[in-house]
Amino acid sequence: MPLKATSGSTVTACLLIIGNEILSGRTQDKNLAFLGQRLNDLGVRLMEVRVIPDSEATIISSLNEVRRRFDYVFTTGGIGPTHDDITADCVAKAFGRPLIVNPEARAILEAHYEPGQLTAARLRMARTPQGAELIENPVSKAPGFQVENVFVMAGIPTIMQAMFASLQHRLVGGAPLRSRSVAVELGESFVAEDLAGLQARFPEVEIGSYPFNRHGVFGTRLVLRATEEDLLDAAAAELDVLLARLGAKAAWEAAPPAAQEVQS
Amino acid sequence: MPLKATSGSTVTACLLIIGNEILSGRTQDKNLAFLGQRLNDLGVRLMEVRVIPDSEATIISSLNEVRRRFDYVFTTGGIGPTHDDITADCVAKAFGRPLIVNPEARAILEAHYEPGQLTAARLRMARTPQGAELIENPVSKAPGFQVENVFVMAGIPTIMQAMFASLQHRLVGGAPLRSRSVAVELGESFVAEDLAGLQARFPEVEIGSYPFNRHGVFGTRLVLRATEEDLLDAAAAELDVLLARLGAKAAWEAAPPAAQEVQS
Repeated sequence: MPLKATSGSTVTACLLIIGNEILSGRTQDKNLAFLGQRLNDLGVRLMEVRVIPDSEATIISSLNEVRRRFDYVFTTGGIGPTHDDITADCVAKAFGRPLIVNPEARAILEAHYEPGQLTAARLRMARTPQGAELIENPVSKAPGFQVENVFVMAGIPTIMQAMFASLQHRLVGGAPLRSRSVAVELGESFVAEDLAGLQARFPEVEIGSYPFNRHGVFGTRLVLRATEEDLLDAAAAELDVLLARLGAKAAWEAAPPAAQEVQS
Repeated sequence: MPLKATSGSTVTACLLIIGNEILSGRTQDKNLAFLGQRLNDLGVRLMEVRVIPDSEATIISSLNEVRRRFDYVFTTGGIGPTHDDITADCVAKAFGRPLIVNPEARAILEAHYEPGQLTAARLRMARTPQGAELIENPVSKAPGFQVENVFVMAGIPTIMQAMFASLQHRLVGGAPLRSRSVAVELGESFVAEDLAGLQARFPEVEIGSYPFNRHGVFGTRLVLRATEEDLLDAAAAELDVLLARLGAKAAWEAAPPAAQEVQS
């Protein structure tokens, strides 16, 4: 059964990225950008992300703070078979529920491994807080799980993405933010004043200005975001006039560009 | 004058990544991995990262929480010339200091722009909380600034990295974590039990196990981290024996690999 959104018209989410390897800079997170885009498509706004270490106290306190502040919380990382995978233990403690070997998860792993190969280490991956609902993992079988508004997923992006596909029907979103974006070959400071005026005339449109440096050319990406298409069209039309008046070389973009290429 | 570390033997840091464009998935952050690695080299451990929106209330409350919990706080983003660049305003409010046009920052911008070109928008980039110490920006001149243990930097990675080079002599670190890492062509569950035993024998070594999927091959990167080389050598020698016993194809890595290639 879908959860009910709790905080008014905007449905909010927080992502907890759990893992020393992200904080040390050894591993580049790829889950934030994926979830930010996919959640918005579902009308859920990613409002905060925290990257925290494999530390029980930190995981529990962070989780207990954010699960009360946001409609949905997603976690990535720490649900594998090794000693440093402590996310399930921490979620159970945060909710004050016993950690059990989930019978359904155990059955999935038993069906997956050859007889006798479901070792103690692998069985760790069947542990969930009592009463958790599983999240299917079509890639490598060991499931994620949901407790109330908290969704616990793997850290490996291919697996996380498959788990997200398995769970997204459980989310109830609001109106997604639509966006228009235009890349301008002008430094931010040349458009700043006009842009502030545009923002004042369109308070319901979120107007962002993001400098970039691509192949040595400094430019600015201007992004308009709003839930209503009409408003967005009107603001975009004014922005177009404004950019033409500045003589700016401007290219409207059809869809959000791949996250990787924007900032460099 | 260098700040004094305040929390015992481990010197800690938190990074606040400020910007809707990161949360929307439109821009991929590159500053976390850089700072995680460079801070560790200086003996400062990045303990938490938060990605937060361009929202005054959120920036102020997050900043006031983390500047008390960590020895150093770094922020990226929101110090450009446009209306959505509100970081300086928020830092001033968080510290209860007036926001001023910093005379030194103004002089830098006056020297940089042609006469008459220091517009109101550009002058925004000279605003700092009263008493802030500037952070030089050799790339595009508009400086960052430091207030107490908080370092405010640009979001564009090339500029952020140059600012970090300008400020790093102000940091006083502890002992950096040294690491050894080995890539193993075995799933995590095959090494899990032996690894837990190794961790029990070396409680002062942080032993991490990170699954990866590279070109369709599932493998595991095992990382040992400790401040003492001797301890690390001893744990690595035992791990080597253990992996040989498992018949694992294992490759020790000379240095941390580029962050981008690890998780896929």
